[in-house]
Amino acid sequence: MTFKEKLLKAVQKNRSWLCIGLDPDLGKLPDHLDKSTAGIEQFLKTIIDSTHDLVCAYKPNSAFFEQFGVDGLLLLKNIIAYIPSEIPIILDAKRGDIGNTSRMYARAAFDYLGVDAITVNPYMGYDCVKPFLDYPNKGVFILCLTSNQSANEFQKQQLTIGGMLYQQVAKTSLSWNVNDNVCLVIGATKPEELAELRAVVGDNIPILIPGVGAQGGDLELSLKSGANVKGELAIINVSRSALYAGKGTDFADKSPAECLRLVTAMRSVLNLA
Amino acid sequence: MTFKEKLLKAVQKNRSWLCIGLDPDLGKLPDHLDKSTAGIEQFLKTIIDSTHDLVCAYKPNSAFFEQFGVDGLLLLKNIIAYIPSEIPIILDAKRGDIGNTSRMYARAAFDYLGVDAITVNPYMGYDCVKPFLDYPNKGVFILCLTSNQSANEFQKQQLTIGGMLYQQVAKTSLSWNVNDNVCLVIGATKPEELAELRAVVGDNIPILIPGVGAQGGDLELSLKSGANVKGELAIINVSRSALYAGKGTDFADKSPAECLRLVTAMRSVLNLA
Repeated sequence: MTFKEKLLKAVQKNRSWLCIGLDPDLGKLPDHLDKSTAGIEQFLKTIIDSTHDLVCAYKPNSAFFEQFGVDGLLLLKNIIAYIPSEIPIILDAKRGDIGNTSRMYARAAFDYLGVDAITVNPYMGYDCVKPFLDYPNKGVFILCLTSNQSANEFQKQQLTIGGMLYQQVAKTSLSWNVNDNVCLVIGATKPEELAELRAVVGDNIPILIPGVGAQGGDLELSLKSGANVKGELAIINVSRSALYAGKGTDFADKSPAECLRLVTAMRSVLNLA
Repeated sequence: MTFKEKLLKAVQKNRSWLCIGLDPDLGKLPDHLDKSTAGIEQFLKTIIDSTHDLVCAYKPNSAFFEQFGVDGLLLLKNIIAYIPSEIPIILDAKRGDIGNTSRMYARAAFDYLGVDAITVNPYMGYDCVKPFLDYPNKGVFILCLTSNQSANEFQKQQLTIGGMLYQQVAKTSLSWNVNDNVCLVIGATKPEELAELRAVVGDNIPILIPGVGAQGGDLELSLKSGANVKGELAIINVSRSALYAGKGTDFADKSPAECLRLVTAMRSVLNLA
């Protein structure tokens, strides 16, 4: 089964385009939990138990696990194994290097960790992305226009051939899509550009949209701008505002409640039955 | 001691601007070694034993360790601990993400692994690089113009404000250099651009120059083009052609012999006494 097929099945089952970003932060854990990777494991498993019927994907953020070294990598393995097999997992890792090195990053993500998709950085061009695209059943989310403040610094540089750099990245990424597994990352903080890019890339490309919640992106506007004509393939990622909705023992209720609020809004925008 | 001070001390001691890239590849290990992370550990420790007086730095490539998961991370820790403390270690990881995530990547590299420098990707702009630059004693190598074939695809896009993207990255990186720890990555396969960029960034910025050897870059031309007026701060990285110079039990002689050949050529170009 390809990443896109698995994604659409999860959407059909859960009537949701919500992706929860798993960014474990000791400083934000509910007070009663142990401030350790064991405490994080308990926390994330409870989040998964209480939200897996509300999401279309989970997005573990590699950096937040890497900070703990070997313990963090073991934690990431355990969390990946714990996520129900029908929910796709997007590893947020922003990888990319020369071909023989990207092949090793692809092995780490797809063969060792066994995730369904990964985020990659396009700065070095095609030969750095190709080793990921060579896994036809895996999704490859190419950074296009990101949600952070400094994104404009290089991504919005105007090119003499016409258009801005991020538009060139979007167009070029389409030309790499021989295995039908190219996906894009476009921030929710840029709804106008999101609508414009959806028009450019057509209806077939999944777009991961981070930046709703803590970063200030608007849910309904992002969904309307990012979805294709069928109201599909706009994956809305929420990390901090969903994970850390409750600071006490009530977090197991507060997180799914926040997710349900978002999903209910989504369903009404997209007329998801 | 800052990264740059440590680098210059190692150069003074070893009269060398050679950096060996540590890219452990099971398929390329000498035949008699066990094809496992234990075999790699034995291999890399022998390489370090026989070359540490010939180099100015080692550059472990994170991807080649990540492919082995937990075993690979333990191996990386062991190799970092094994490298003599006076030789700086540049982690080649090409990281970069929004601020709160880059902070975690910086922790993983500088606090957990304890390396002296890291390579980062500038596509997302300043707020993604700043968390690394905030460690004043660590070097931050920003990808500018890379050695791979597809580098031109985006990096050489001409901007309407003048110059190409990689030139804009170089100029902008300079403006981020408040802690005197900005460094650049510029491929040896682009000697003309290397000379041009050295002129643009001035004499104070270390430049890491990969691509000599397997990728076809010319040693003398790269050195002459990349060094500053004092003949300094051009770090020539060689990975495969140095590591895998010998396929048999003679590798412990062939690798240092290949490094000595490169260093001797370097010394003559740079008049290193």
